[in-house]
Amino acid sequence: MKIKSFLNYLNENNIKKAVILKKENINYFLERYPPTFSILVFDVKHDRAVLKVPKLEYRGALTYKNKYLDIELFEKIEEVFKGCDGVEDSLPLKFLKYLDNYKIISDKIREMRRIKNSKEIGLIQKAAKISDKAIEHATELILNTDKPITECELAAEIEYIMKKEGSIKPSFDTIAVSDKKTALPHSMPSSNTIKNILLMDIGAVYEGYHSDITRTVILNQDKRYKDIYNLVNSAKTEAEAYLKEGVSVKELDSIARKSMGKYEKYFIHSLGHGVGVEIHEEPAVSSKVKEDIILKEGMVITIEPGIYLDDFGVRIEDLYLVKRNGFKKLSNAKIMEY
Amino acid sequence: MKIKSFLNYLNENNIKKAVILKKENINYFLERYPPTFSILVFDVKHDRAVLKVPKLEYRGALTYKNKYLDIELFEKIEEVFKGCDGVEDSLPLKFLKYLDNYKIISDKIREMRRIKNSKEIGLIQKAAKISDKAIEHATELILNTDKPITECELAAEIEYIMKKEGSIKPSFDTIAVSDKKTALPHSMPSSNTIKNILLMDIGAVYEGYHSDITRTVILNQDKRYKDIYNLVNSAKTEAEAYLKEGVSVKELDSIARKSMGKYEKYFIHSLGHGVGVEIHEEPAVSSKVKEDIILKEGMVITIEPGIYLDDFGVRIEDLYLVKRNGFKKLSNAKIMEY
Repeated sequence: MKIKSFLNYLNENNIKKAVILKKENINYFLERYPPTFSILVFDVKHDRAVLKVPKLEYRGALTYKNKYLDIELFEKIEEVFKGCDGVEDSLPLKFLKYLDNYKIISDKIREMRRIKNSKEIGLIQKAAKISDKAIEHATELILNTDKPITECELAAEIEYIMKKEGSIKPSFDTIAVSDKKTALPHSMPSSNTIKNILLMDIGAVYEGYHSDITRTVILNQDKRYKDIYNLVNSAKTEAEAYLKEGVSVKELDSIARKSMGKYEKYFIHSLGHGVGVEIHEEPAVSSKVKEDIILKEGMVITIEPGIYLDDFGVRIEDLYLVKRNGFKKLSNAKIMEY
Repeated sequence: MKIKSFLNYLNENNIKKAVILKKENINYFLERYPPTFSILVFDVKHDRAVLKVPKLEYRGALTYKNKYLDIELFEKIEEVFKGCDGVEDSLPLKFLKYLDNYKIISDKIREMRRIKNSKEIGLIQKAAKISDKAIEHATELILNTDKPITECELAAEIEYIMKKEGSIKPSFDTIAVSDKKTALPHSMPSSNTIKNILLMDIGAVYEGYHSDITRTVILNQDKRYKDIYNLVNSAKTEAEAYLKEGVSVKELDSIARKSMGKYEKYFIHSLGHGVGVEIHEEPAVSSKVKEDIILKEGMVITIEPGIYLDDFGVRIEDLYLVKRNGFKKLSNAKIMEY
């Protein structure tokens, strides 16, 4: 149990009281989307955690109570930090005045968060199924209509499906862009009509756990689109062939990158990233990380090679659970072949 | 011009270089939704601001360039903080190691953000029109259908309309809950079928500027619903009658609260809050604030009285621009009468 094992960690490290403000970390310990404005306090002396919630959340929060977790009314922030000697490295400076000596507990939480338990995998899988459904719906829509559709309209369709299927919110600002805008890895949907080539990068959030998937769809017969598409797709397949426990993230990134030959220089971001209660978390799947990370069973990562030329770009991305001898693909929307 | 006037403020306060990491503050200075992972640096010596963006955002960010704002590639975080002596109070502790002596610049930014300029008012108004449209659509849908609709489905409809109309994302997790769940001010939509009474609290985001609106819709003939609804609605009208420049936030909150008579104790949150690049910003419209704030022309606030009983709750909320002699209502969706 996460809460209990973190209490043990704190005890072993002589931390008496830790305060967690970061919503994603609270989500991680609860394995459930937390109430608004809640604070998680680890009280090592009493071997328990307390979720502090404001008055207007109190009744709703009572369902979170369990053996290791009490629910209490938040009153004063001074009270919450009283005796606190363990904080996150994301703690805003303004709380420093409540602290005397403190240790940073974020490294331990980041390390714990790298490996997903079966409940977390289930939640990510649920999120991934939702984004699969949405991206397939959008693909069919764009391929089977003669009506002009704008980028904003398609993004709205995608988010509608996700919300209806139970996603709390999009995992990040939904990308559904076409034509020259695909040359920018993170551009935002506009009122432009979709044409020529479409790039969709989307994610769902289920009980606070994220998914992430990208599909590119070619809408005309331009051979340049197809050539780049196939190069990106085979870089992804190349990486998949090496993906399993024991492989280093630097190595995996390099394999995909090198497979692009002279187009390597147009692959201007890293190969992938961990996914969980945040859309980007450890391990970064990148050749640029300071300390290399060896993939382990239970990690959930994306592989998302992309090539961005002057007038268009292609990215294809899936979500993977790392296994001892390979991986399980968590996102399974159809990948177009050209 | 905000950037120039903030440079002047820094200069007067002997701050040579300020680093802004908080996305909402960057949005405030740009008056536009910022590129992902961008950092805003105020370089007082050279009387300019620089937006640092990662490689994959660089091309897209060039459109942000103006007389006072340069766009540069982000390379090293150490570089960004080199010589920095002005930071936000929200700065995560992990960056402390790059700082020597520093001053906190957040109070000034919060103060600046209280008063909206005409461009900002236009953006908030645009966001408010989007949420008006969505909440009216949802109200009509629920009143004119015999088909069962779940809370999640209705939330999906609302967000779909908002997205299609150009909202980047919902301003906060959309609330569309019914029956007993309305008793909890912030509960989340579920797969429950909507019945008896419906509470929708929603907002849109346009170029980073937020809107906020709540409507309650009664779906049966229960007299208790109507009585409480009318009490809440008249508390809102009461507050509106006093709303103008010069009124204190404590006073405004008290006026609405007292008008509820014996139901005052079921009004378990504050009357309202400022709205801008964040959904909750200054001024808080509350009797509980430490320091009272006097409303000024150009402030944008919500008024949102609510009463939450054991088995249901009612909240009605609108968004207002404070004027010298009154206010301009920025949200204008129809309010049901019972």
